[in-house]
Amino acid sequence: MADRFEIHLYDTKQREKVRFLPSVPGRVGLYVCGPTVYSDAHLGHAKTQIAFDIIRRYFEYAGYQVRMVSNITDVGHITDETSDEGHDRIGARARLEQLEPMEVADKYFWSYADDMARLNLRRPSVSPRATGHIPEQIALISELIARGHAYQAAGSVYFRVASWPAYGQLSHRDIDELTSGTREEVRGEKEDPRDFALWKRAEPSHLMRWDSPWGVGFPGWHIECSAMSLKYLGDGFDIHGGGLDLQFPHHEAEIAQAEAAGHPFARYWMHANLLTVGGEKMSKSRGNFVTLKELLSRHDPMAVRLLLLQSHYRSVAEFNEVALSAAAQAYARLRGVYQELLRRLGDSLPEPSGEEWLAQAAARCRADFERAMNDDFNTPEALAALFGLAREVASALQGQPQPAELAAAARTFRQLGEEVFGLFAETQGRAGEELVSGLLDLILEQRTAYRERRQWAESDRLRARLEALGVTVEDGQGGSRWKLAQSS
Amino acid sequence: MADRFEIHLYDTKQREKVRFLPSVPGRVGLYVCGPTVYSDAHLGHAKTQIAFDIIRRYFEYAGYQVRMVSNITDVGHITDETSDEGHDRIGARARLEQLEPMEVADKYFWSYADDMARLNLRRPSVSPRATGHIPEQIALISELIARGHAYQAAGSVYFRVASWPAYGQLSHRDIDELTSGTREEVRGEKEDPRDFALWKRAEPSHLMRWDSPWGVGFPGWHIECSAMSLKYLGDGFDIHGGGLDLQFPHHEAEIAQAEAAGHPFARYWMHANLLTVGGEKMSKSRGNFVTLKELLSRHDPMAVRLLLLQSHYRSVAEFNEVALSAAAQAYARLRGVYQELLRRLGDSLPEPSGEEWLAQAAARCRADFERAMNDDFNTPEALAALFGLAREVASALQGQPQPAELAAAARTFRQLGEEVFGLFAETQGRAGEELVSGLLDLILEQRTAYRERRQWAESDRLRARLEALGVTVEDGQGGSRWKLAQSS
Repeated sequence: MADRFEIHLYDTKQREKVRFLPSVPGRVGLYVCGPTVYSDAHLGHAKTQIAFDIIRRYFEYAGYQVRMVSNITDVGHITDETSDEGHDRIGARARLEQLEPMEVADKYFWSYADDMARLNLRRPSVSPRATGHIPEQIALISELIARGHAYQAAGSVYFRVASWPAYGQLSHRDIDELTSGTREEVRGEKEDPRDFALWKRAEPSHLMRWDSPWGVGFPGWHIECSAMSLKYLGDGFDIHGGGLDLQFPHHEAEIAQAEAAGHPFARYWMHANLLTVGGEKMSKSRGNFVTLKELLSRHDPMAVRLLLLQSHYRSVAEFNEVALSAAAQAYARLRGVYQELLRRLGDSLPEPSGEEWLAQAAARCRADFERAMNDDFNTPEALAALFGLAREVASALQGQPQPAELAAAARTFRQLGEEVFGLFAETQGRAGEELVSGLLDLILEQRTAYRERRQWAESDRLRARLEALGVTVEDGQGGSRWKLAQSS
Repeated sequence: MADRFEIHLYDTKQREKVRFLPSVPGRVGLYVCGPTVYSDAHLGHAKTQIAFDIIRRYFEYAGYQVRMVSNITDVGHITDETSDEGHDRIGARARLEQLEPMEVADKYFWSYADDMARLNLRRPSVSPRATGHIPEQIALISELIARGHAYQAAGSVYFRVASWPAYGQLSHRDIDELTSGTREEVRGEKEDPRDFALWKRAEPSHLMRWDSPWGVGFPGWHIECSAMSLKYLGDGFDIHGGGLDLQFPHHEAEIAQAEAAGHPFARYWMHANLLTVGGEKMSKSRGNFVTLKELLSRHDPMAVRLLLLQSHYRSVAEFNEVALSAAAQAYARLRGVYQELLRRLGDSLPEPSGEEWLAQAAARCRADFERAMNDDFNTPEALAALFGLAREVASALQGQPQPAELAAAARTFRQLGEEVFGLFAETQGRAGEELVSGLLDLILEQRTAYRERRQWAESDRLRARLEALGVTVEDGQGGSRWKLAQSS
């Protein structure tokens, strides 16, 4: 494994590609920042999550046992944490929908979980929730206070940035220059405007609240990720991932909170770049977002996945419907070849001998795929290798090969396309629709032939049989059309 | 609403049917004990959960806004809490699968969530997890200690049963007689063998552990449900439900923990009876269980739902494959009539006028259905009303009615069958399979006719067209057979 899977990744902190070496041989600990569950997820969320889903799958393909932890933020945080002006999104939504805050959080938790499942993301090994780890967050804050890196002020607790010179090391900012960019502190509780909240006292209007050594309140925005990643992955875990927009202040604060309390934090930092629409970041606040539910009601989830695979995770991906349609067509070609392979092989997928026809093409594809993925998970190049194999297979299939000759190619498609890239997982419903439509067209052609030959009895019999299956046939000027019963 | 939906339910505590009166007009607070997530769920779990899913749906049909809370037990409890002999199921599974305990909990949490979704259970409004509510449990235990109803002993805390004469009120047991039935106390920490643990000190081998005022430990088996139901539904909430096997000691302990701490508890108690196999309770420990995954790989989830609707929730349901096959057939009849109704109506479901044909039958069905459901959710009788309507509809459809005449019947099927009973929700995949199979049979019959007439060109053309759709045709001794490509 050592040489074949020498994986290099771009570490945001070191600002270069470095070789990945696990802290425990054969294992990868991976933490990925998850959603705040107060509204339906949009395609921007999917870009980040699909990137890390594929990174996890590739590590597993390379023989690692991966523990992937991805949090669910269900605390009602204040949106603008430098002042009292912001509002708590979950609380606001709860008032709007007349629900208890945890009903809002659970509603959008399930919405997110269902969207990710449709996109064929594997469930994280652990999906810890911020509200489920209040004691762990309080314990970490207490350690920071004890070490002088945090202080209480009027029922809130703040991190003392001046006490931690390493602050800024991830995002490569000079902490002495941070001050000027920070907004005027309204409450005036902080020693220093750069300080950030670890615990906030709950105003009477704040619905989610817990007791703490500092009074009734709720955790700050950043502390949950430090506490939960350390709890489930241990000190000095391997990789921390997330969207690029979280690099500062969120990830910077995570490091400071953990390391100032004496816990070595993530050894590698990986950031997925943004999704843009017309050059602007897709986000709820800009109003230029498309929810996954809306998108997936019109498009095959696998086409969405392919679209995102076509750009490197560290690149900005520009979204538009034209690009998505093109991805859908490309996906249909890839899937067509794979299905044809499987069809020729029947139910069996024999162990390849390495001697067969296409075995060399498959081996070349696999080597190119692995080379691309070992080089900071270069999915566009790895995808090109898979399309290259698809072309060779399509051409070879013209020659009516024996099924056994196809085994190596089929296995390569399965391992690289299905297992690593998570493709070919369309729901039966969607795949079934195409098939049903093809079969019905075929039957209606038969019926039209009967009608042209004036074999009315045969034609009527076919119509009746279709009716019994819940299919209505309408004969009109332009020929016959079929319609399925509403709920079949 | 008042008269039409005068709902009576059997209250286990009062041991009689009583009229349900909500504590807040127009709202229902419902707590249902959920699973311990350490293995795949079996049909016994589904019986209880489907019962309360339908009770929730009927309350909503009756105009109530329902908040349903159902917990996820993800703490590794000791199985035999009267001694040290038992073991922690989640911890044991974690060692077996070489996973961190929370990975085990999350794995089986998703397994449970997916099974319930396939059975078309609506997600609870809130699914609180025991490990996510440690502070709430500690707070409740502290209240009990302060009031003298609990005491510490060697790092554990026990409920003092002798201090709470009402103990036994739900299960109608005399607490003075409880002693004799309790096993010898091994640890000897309890004042009284009837006392039960609220908090247990963690032995070094126990993987899940939290700090508490009494040392490092984990919550007892019962306390999570008291703490979480009170948190999300409030003091004196409406209904507490669960399986009959939880009545004692679990539910009895829940009441004692809440009320001894000064919190009025559930106003009504509802218990779903057991599922048996050959007269024995289906359970993991007896080894006579069938997991939902295994069952649903062979059977339509809707047939399973119908099977469980055929018995009253307070009756024992005996499971066997013959009964399930019969339920599948009954379901196919009901679904066939509903689909035929929808097909005749096309895409529209017009507002019924009450004047149309079948409107009287529909109104009679609805009245019978509501009468049955108002009487302690008598699903077998309500189902009979729906089958009665199905028979009338099937007979009426012989007369080629106008679509508008069918509106009342269709709407009744939708509201009672689809919305209240949660039927007719088969996945597209499954419904599609039947259709595909029907269409393919039809095409092969055509092809056989060509072959019998020796029209080989036509026969080969059909075969090629099917191949293009991913369907292989095999001609053999007994006729032609079709086979779908593996992943279509």
